[in-house]
Amino acid sequence: MHDILAPGSTIGILGGGQLGRMLSVAAGRLGLKVHVYEPAENPPAGQLCTDLTTASYDDATALRAFAASVDVITYEFENIPTSALDLLESLRPIRPGRRALAVSQDRADEKAFLQSLGLKTAPFYAVDTEEDLHQAVAEIGTPAILKTRRFGYDGKGQVRLTNPNEVTAAWHAISGSPAVLEGFVEFSHEVSVIAARGLDGAVACFDPGENLHQNGILHRTTVPARLSASQRTDAVLLAGRIVTALDYVGVMGVELFVTAQGLVVNEIAPRVHNSGHWTQNGCVIDQFEQHIRAVAGWPLGDGTRHSDIEMINLIGDDVNQVPTLAARSDTALHLYGKAEARPGRKMGHTNRYLGPAAQG
Amino acid sequence: MHDILAPGSTIGILGGGQLGRMLSVAAGRLGLKVHVYEPAENPPAGQLCTDLTTASYDDATALRAFAASVDVITYEFENIPTSALDLLESLRPIRPGRRALAVSQDRADEKAFLQSLGLKTAPFYAVDTEEDLHQAVAEIGTPAILKTRRFGYDGKGQVRLTNPNEVTAAWHAISGSPAVLEGFVEFSHEVSVIAARGLDGAVACFDPGENLHQNGILHRTTVPARLSASQRTDAVLLAGRIVTALDYVGVMGVELFVTAQGLVVNEIAPRVHNSGHWTQNGCVIDQFEQHIRAVAGWPLGDGTRHSDIEMINLIGDDVNQVPTLAARSDTALHLYGKAEARPGRKMGHTNRYLGPAAQG
Repeated sequence: MHDILAPGSTIGILGGGQLGRMLSVAAGRLGLKVHVYEPAENPPAGQLCTDLTTASYDDATALRAFAASVDVITYEFENIPTSALDLLESLRPIRPGRRALAVSQDRADEKAFLQSLGLKTAPFYAVDTEEDLHQAVAEIGTPAILKTRRFGYDGKGQVRLTNPNEVTAAWHAISGSPAVLEGFVEFSHEVSVIAARGLDGAVACFDPGENLHQNGILHRTTVPARLSASQRTDAVLLAGRIVTALDYVGVMGVELFVTAQGLVVNEIAPRVHNSGHWTQNGCVIDQFEQHIRAVAGWPLGDGTRHSDIEMINLIGDDVNQVPTLAARSDTALHLYGKAEARPGRKMGHTNRYLGPAAQG
Repeated sequence: MHDILAPGSTIGILGGGQLGRMLSVAAGRLGLKVHVYEPAENPPAGQLCTDLTTASYDDATALRAFAASVDVITYEFENIPTSALDLLESLRPIRPGRRALAVSQDRADEKAFLQSLGLKTAPFYAVDTEEDLHQAVAEIGTPAILKTRRFGYDGKGQVRLTNPNEVTAAWHAISGSPAVLEGFVEFSHEVSVIAARGLDGAVACFDPGENLHQNGILHRTTVPARLSASQRTDAVLLAGRIVTALDYVGVMGVELFVTAQGLVVNEIAPRVHNSGHWTQNGCVIDQFEQHIRAVAGWPLGDGTRHSDIEMINLIGDDVNQVPTLAARSDTALHLYGKAEARPGRKMGHTNRYLGPAAQG
């Protein structure tokens, strides 16, 4: 099959952050080269890739040269300008494809898509004007969260409404951007499934991890998650339904709320996902290699987990704990090569080995 | 301590082969940058490092610039020209240090050193002339192996003598290089210990692996090795004695023959070692990270093994098995990014997960 990349081929990655860096290392393990495209200077992935282009997403010449140098294109974040994608797609395959990007770039479209598959989401109401927001609050009630439809991540572009009087303030807080109002979901905890779909349509999911957020940013993922056997099956099946419906190729993060009424999909991310970092030390084939395998047309790993792992993010000044963490023999350190530890900035993570996975 | 390198520091690696490549990735995980120095064009490590210098080992200008750009220097192979080491050592610390290099670069010195520690080696006789070789054969008997004292690896520079009439042919086969004649050791199998010593003098060893060679090249390493509890202890203790006696900093491979009379040291390698590749999938902190930790003055991992692993080298055309191997979910592929699969060339390896390590 011409779609299967041989070792020595080159994968282009849009975005040079830590996800691109870890994707590059995974590609290297498979004998594949990586060319990273990133507008910012000195990106984390630039320290561990074969080639790096530093250029903006509206530089058509740079985009064309990048495409010409690679065999397939993938990305480490979903907010890539459409014009760049249009140009690149005319030259090389982009995996995962445009439909997944379009759906996940817009919170209203994403929820409508998920509901179309029969999956539960938070109640939501699309908001384009302050009047819409009044109507949305009347419909959904408070408390609720107003989220910009596009370009949100790690809690950015979100404001909470605790009562209807806060409509105007909330609308100004998001600068009147197109948004959705989401109702609160009563959940006991959050889990996520790292799902993968190969070019051949095969689907493989990693065991769900249990996530704890702090200040809107993932703090910890633990495997195994607290889930009943049937919840675990449900989680994996619904993630499979999502990637199949999108004719998806690659790894997707699917965040789920565990509620008394079953699993509710919080959001999906069409890329490797922070809540899947535990796979680096818990699986033979981790999420980064799984994504590269899918994008390169290789067979997927089956997602089997051999160990119980606790992943903890090192955010901002957390990185000052590195000397202490380095002395722990049960803990794998993964640092991203970022020089400056700004508040809220993801500097690295640790995977702590908890023991062999219980036999299933 | 000024000797402890902070994340963001740069490690210089002499040699750009697969060992340098995997060292570079391990350094990257710890947030360290890597500058590789390698005479050959397009080395495997060049695809996954921060900086690459392509220059010969007698290019003093390039060596000086390399040294100026790094905080500490290590190496992935032991046959670095002395003149290059002399220059580099005047500018930056080289770890492991010169004594280990000197001892391991010369088979006669190595065996004399090991015997000085009270360790068993094969009987040997230093050979500088054809007359010496006659004397050596008279002393040691046949069968025996004539090995060049320097620059041997993977069975190169070796010739077997099955009877005394072969002295002249053997002497010509190694072109009259300084050599040692080694007597055969009756052994049941070979194991190796990957030992590490930190800058603070702490010693940690990985569990011994059992090695099988084919055509003089390592084919397979399996953990756990077939060893009694007391043999396992002996193996680890003697490896510890070696690294401590050399005031060693870094990872060392120690190959041992298992005989009815106890463990016999075959040879030592002052670097990460092919027989330690299983640690990438069997341990939280693998041999590459362990070496970087030592060289960077970080605390060592303790070498704990969480899984049973079988490592198999992909030599030459073995790499054609990649499509089949890629379909095995229990198998981690590690390819080295080499374009051409020449006979005897190490193209990659696989680590097959056999199950959780038995509780010790």
